[in-house]
Amino acid sequence: MREVVIGICGLGTVGSGTFNLILKNRDEIARKTGVQLRVSHVGCRRDHPDCDLSQVTVSRDVFAVVKDPAVEVVLELMGGIETAKDLVEQAIDNGKHVVTANKALIALHGMDLMQRAVDNQVSLRFEAAIAGGIPIVKVLTEGLAGNENLVVAGIINGTTNYILTEMEQAGNRDFSEVLAEAQSLGYAEADPTFDVEGIDAAHKLAILSSMAFGVPLNFEAMYTEGISAVTSADIKYAAELGYRIKHLGITRKTDNGIELRVHPTLIKKSAMLAQVNGVMNAVLVDSDAAGETMYVGAGAGSGPTASSVLTDVIAIVQGTSTTGLGYKLEELQPLQMLAIEDVISAYYLRLRVMDVPGVMAKVSTILSQGNISIESLIQKDARDGDVPIVIVTNEVQERALNTAIAELEALEHIKGMVTRIRVFNI
Amino acid sequence: MREVVIGICGLGTVGSGTFNLILKNRDEIARKTGVQLRVSHVGCRRDHPDCDLSQVTVSRDVFAVVKDPAVEVVLELMGGIETAKDLVEQAIDNGKHVVTANKALIALHGMDLMQRAVDNQVSLRFEAAIAGGIPIVKVLTEGLAGNENLVVAGIINGTTNYILTEMEQAGNRDFSEVLAEAQSLGYAEADPTFDVEGIDAAHKLAILSSMAFGVPLNFEAMYTEGISAVTSADIKYAAELGYRIKHLGITRKTDNGIELRVHPTLIKKSAMLAQVNGVMNAVLVDSDAAGETMYVGAGAGSGPTASSVLTDVIAIVQGTSTTGLGYKLEELQPLQMLAIEDVISAYYLRLRVMDVPGVMAKVSTILSQGNISIESLIQKDARDGDVPIVIVTNEVQERALNTAIAELEALEHIKGMVTRIRVFNI
Repeated sequence: MREVVIGICGLGTVGSGTFNLILKNRDEIARKTGVQLRVSHVGCRRDHPDCDLSQVTVSRDVFAVVKDPAVEVVLELMGGIETAKDLVEQAIDNGKHVVTANKALIALHGMDLMQRAVDNQVSLRFEAAIAGGIPIVKVLTEGLAGNENLVVAGIINGTTNYILTEMEQAGNRDFSEVLAEAQSLGYAEADPTFDVEGIDAAHKLAILSSMAFGVPLNFEAMYTEGISAVTSADIKYAAELGYRIKHLGITRKTDNGIELRVHPTLIKKSAMLAQVNGVMNAVLVDSDAAGETMYVGAGAGSGPTASSVLTDVIAIVQGTSTTGLGYKLEELQPLQMLAIEDVISAYYLRLRVMDVPGVMAKVSTILSQGNISIESLIQKDARDGDVPIVIVTNEVQERALNTAIAELEALEHIKGMVTRIRVFNI
Repeated sequence: MREVVIGICGLGTVGSGTFNLILKNRDEIARKTGVQLRVSHVGCRRDHPDCDLSQVTVSRDVFAVVKDPAVEVVLELMGGIETAKDLVEQAIDNGKHVVTANKALIALHGMDLMQRAVDNQVSLRFEAAIAGGIPIVKVLTEGLAGNENLVVAGIINGTTNYILTEMEQAGNRDFSEVLAEAQSLGYAEADPTFDVEGIDAAHKLAILSSMAFGVPLNFEAMYTEGISAVTSADIKYAAELGYRIKHLGITRKTDNGIELRVHPTLIKKSAMLAQVNGVMNAVLVDSDAAGETMYVGAGAGSGPTASSVLTDVIAIVQGTSTTGLGYKLEELQPLQMLAIEDVISAYYLRLRVMDVPGVMAKVSTILSQGNISIESLIQKDARDGDVPIVIVTNEVQERALNTAIAELEALEHIKGMVTRIRVFNI
């Protein structure tokens, strides 16, 4: 039986999981592919207690793996950007196929790396970079390949989904309290910035957008907003209006260009995405022929990520000719990318006004002058002279909404800033 | 640019949708694959009003398509079994790749047809045979290929899911009434037997099971039960106990063998599958590494089915070497298939007893003598001397449950038969 020799760079959570999954399932994989997988070389700063490395070469210098002539497929499972980039480049230059779980690396340097892979006639694959164990790269690049895609929207960061779910279910707990709990449970990093500020989701969405619409990777065009400003009051008001707040990545093809945005979002409780709670991830795709399809699973963790790494390894050993983004690299075509001010959306607005006559009339006038119609409105009882007003608007361009918000905030009887959360109707 | 020539057999809902989807998206597909798809020959009993056939050869004899030397890929979109089987065999013998949406054909004759395809070095693919636009074949055979699968459970028939959803949401409407409505809306066939008695789902589940566990197709081992006996009372009692009734196909690998069963099933309302309503389909997969992943989408219709047909066409033109069930054909290994009596499950039981003292004690005694423990129980108020008792048991082998049910039905104060619905805890 043909054997394919694998080198693993990085033996943390993902690397160790992948190492052990290959050991466990290689006979089953051989029944599927006719190929025996063998890990011959592991590059890692330290051994992993869960991995028996007695049958493999272990190097403390990860670059030794990509220089090893026996290695045919390199798994870059270290994370980070600069060293990973050097490593992947050298692996490609040495004629080795590369599988990576590194979303930042692909989002920021994917175009160069893919061109390099094409030039060297090797594969560069990254199923594990997005949505953990959900094979969403394969779905978009192959499973829905006959479609023209219209929208991809996903819950693609488990940490933010866990925090928002807890905030909703616990009722009156604020972001910082739930974040601290998520950290103690291992669902959030000690430095949670990448997750809670949406950067991790933005990396993933950049890749999803490129695959969905055949455009070059364009992380710079991304609008990114995290969840740290979401309050339990907003979650409660949203629920009263029939919505749930999720942190979504949304990319949509419109007549004016491509939307590319990550932010907290109100979605109808009845929508499929609204049912996805805790650390689960889900990606909804709307396509011209297949219609709405949705893919749900664990977004992170050793097993799910290892599953997706092996998806790529198996595609490579089977000689699957689709690589990267699902389009021939030279066929990627830049389209207009929409700035967030150009996006047309519905909005949730929350204002605090003073309990004096005529305020509501002024608020309504400003909205109507901006051609912003009101879908629903809640005015709550005054408390300490404060009256909360919550509005869901119909669709309007964000630029017009910004103007209206500036006018609202300049009103004499408005207290503080207007809270604004985008609404996604699908 | 390389051109691949396609012949379409059958120009009904699926055939016409596929014909038009190729026309609409062939440039986009060329950007992905480097291949231009061209339909050159259509075999159909009559033209379709939505299709402009002026640029293609049209034959009233579908066999003319598989004899056409120019055709490289044959799409069998006619349905039915015997003629379709002849056609696919001739296409394969003539060295043509075949894509089919025909679940019955694959479930019943797939092993022979796949062997024939291997012998003739062509592909035989059937993404569209299961769950409409959801690329579940690609997910199971490629996307999760690094995993050992444990369970596949799916809502894989839109008609039954529509009927059960309507029965639940409408409250007090019985099966036959909702079926008649589904027929008038086009969600159920004039002869609904294949759908409502579970045969269509059974065909699909046989294929899913073979892909999930690497066993030969074995439709004969299937246990099949439809939804025609489900009453609105059962739906209501299930809801009181926190469950929803869905028509599921379940295949599971146990230490004793493979479960392969289609039947109405109670699932917890909080379970992901319970959220899938109306004509939507969903397949839940539990695997050793990826964990639980779920795939949701429209289970039928022109567009979704055409999407999956094109998934296969594109895989063929890209030379994807995985074929059929995801395993090398000679590596499929028969495993013990469990009879329904050997399955271990929890159960929902509904009894009508007379309103006399001591009945509950007798019921409890019979269950406890059968080592059947009670998870929850509702005893309703007597009406016309009838007392409904609803029980959810803990897990027990079906054989033991059958014995207990026979003893219950023999009790003097039990009225009629005991209703039994399996419970799926995932």
